[in-house]
Amino acid sequence: MSQAAGSTAALSPAAARAQFRAGLRRPTSGISPGFAQVNLLALPRELGFDMLLFAQRNPKSCPVLGVFEPGQFHDAGARNPLLAEGDLRTDIPAYRVYRDGELTAEPGDATQHWREDLVAFLIGCSFTFEAPLLEAGIPIAHIEQGVNVPMYKTAIRCEPAGRLSGPLVVSMRPLPADLIADAVRITSRYPGVHGAPVHIGSPAELGITDLDAPDFGDPVQIPAGWTPVFWACGVTPQAAVMESAPELAISHAPGHMLITDLPNTALQVP
Amino acid sequence: MSQAAGSTAALSPAAARAQFRAGLRRPTSGISPGFAQVNLLALPRELGFDMLLFAQRNPKSCPVLGVFEPGQFHDAGARNPLLAEGDLRTDIPAYRVYRDGELTAEPGDATQHWREDLVAFLIGCSFTFEAPLLEAGIPIAHIEQGVNVPMYKTAIRCEPAGRLSGPLVVSMRPLPADLIADAVRITSRYPGVHGAPVHIGSPAELGITDLDAPDFGDPVQIPAGWTPVFWACGVTPQAAVMESAPELAISHAPGHMLITDLPNTALQVP
Repeated sequence: MSQAAGSTAALSPAAARAQFRAGLRRPTSGISPGFAQVNLLALPRELGFDMLLFAQRNPKSCPVLGVFEPGQFHDAGARNPLLAEGDLRTDIPAYRVYRDGELTAEPGDATQHWREDLVAFLIGCSFTFEAPLLEAGIPIAHIEQGVNVPMYKTAIRCEPAGRLSGPLVVSMRPLPADLIADAVRITSRYPGVHGAPVHIGSPAELGITDLDAPDFGDPVQIPAGWTPVFWACGVTPQAAVMESAPELAISHAPGHMLITDLPNTALQVP
Repeated sequence: MSQAAGSTAALSPAAARAQFRAGLRRPTSGISPGFAQVNLLALPRELGFDMLLFAQRNPKSCPVLGVFEPGQFHDAGARNPLLAEGDLRTDIPAYRVYRDGELTAEPGDATQHWREDLVAFLIGCSFTFEAPLLEAGIPIAHIEQGVNVPMYKTAIRCEPAGRLSGPLVVSMRPLPADLIADAVRITSRYPGVHGAPVHIGSPAELGITDLDAPDFGDPVQIPAGWTPVFWACGVTPQAAVMESAPELAISHAPGHMLITDLPNTALQVP
């Protein structure tokens, strides 16, 4: 799944979303740098408590940046809006529809699959901190190679909550040895979009046997001497959906995020 | 409500809780320094989603550090236990029982008021960062004066969630001008226990007309030239209970916290 970097990179979030709404389908890494990107997971209202509890217990993988209640498709007028205009059901490049845990559709528009009792959880995405990494001269392999970021289900179990359980999913960025500490320092300032890495090197300890066969996204070539660095990934709740099999769940397609109107600076600590 | 500082200060969390379980009733500021203290709010399960949503929308006042499900009274065996032994219903120095939003009892033991469908939310308390403040030479007036911290309902409205709404509650510590920046820097590293101040000086802008008449806790004397510094307070969800009037809620008494087994270092970022 190659992507033409460049043409959409400098778009405002609203302009990027307009292109996705019009049908453009591509991963969102590198688009609208400076603005937060988020994962979507929409679940029936009766699973809302379990989902927020799952997020509270697994904060590295599930930092909840917003919750849209049933019937709410933007948050215009909020103090710090995520989606100041547009529609959550159309403005993501690609969606996934799960029924009883099975992927049943991957539409570019989720409107016809939406249900009035769905609560939408918006979960921080590590694409957000790629802009400050790039600014610090830290290379992002999947952007340079024009592919989606590789993501892996791990052997690490999340803390379960109610009816939701599943494995930790991680994204991987290979880095040269002299830049790993800087990447830790920079990303630790963005806990709302997964923060510092959860694992550096040793993919086998995560239960990853083949870095070239990611469970989501695309493989990246790892230059000699570089180390794979793993961050918790917002596809984790999607993996919990696959395992826990709620009757309906709608998510983004991995790597195809909602580009929000929230500037990265609003997420930076301390 | 004066408190004899000293005798209980150096106790381990388990030893302090044993004293509270045996009947000791006093504010917990200054006790077991180095370990996190938390607010309690227990609500019927059917309000669980609203409460977690309220917390997600008001993260400065409601940082959720743990959720005990119905029937769970400790979390022995958890990766980072809050309460490795003991019982949430007895180990706090004083509780408050609210029925339909009205304070109906303030027992030292909540067991007889507990109900099997209650979910307990444990919310970070700013007493936690008083230890690192003291280590940095920053004076804590209410500890020096042997009283409970003063807390105020403000004119700032929280973001509502479902059936829960209410005002922001703040705690206040007066500080000398040359130490305020240090206090901001240090407390910002503890977002799980309210983090940086929400307001420095100008109590009138918070709707506070008389610092000597706090809504919770005790007044403190403010030395000439010192400025009142306000932090978001975990009594905020208790104020939401008073306003929103769920049929039953059980909380700690303000300033009388659960002393946990979680070391402060586990909460420090970055």
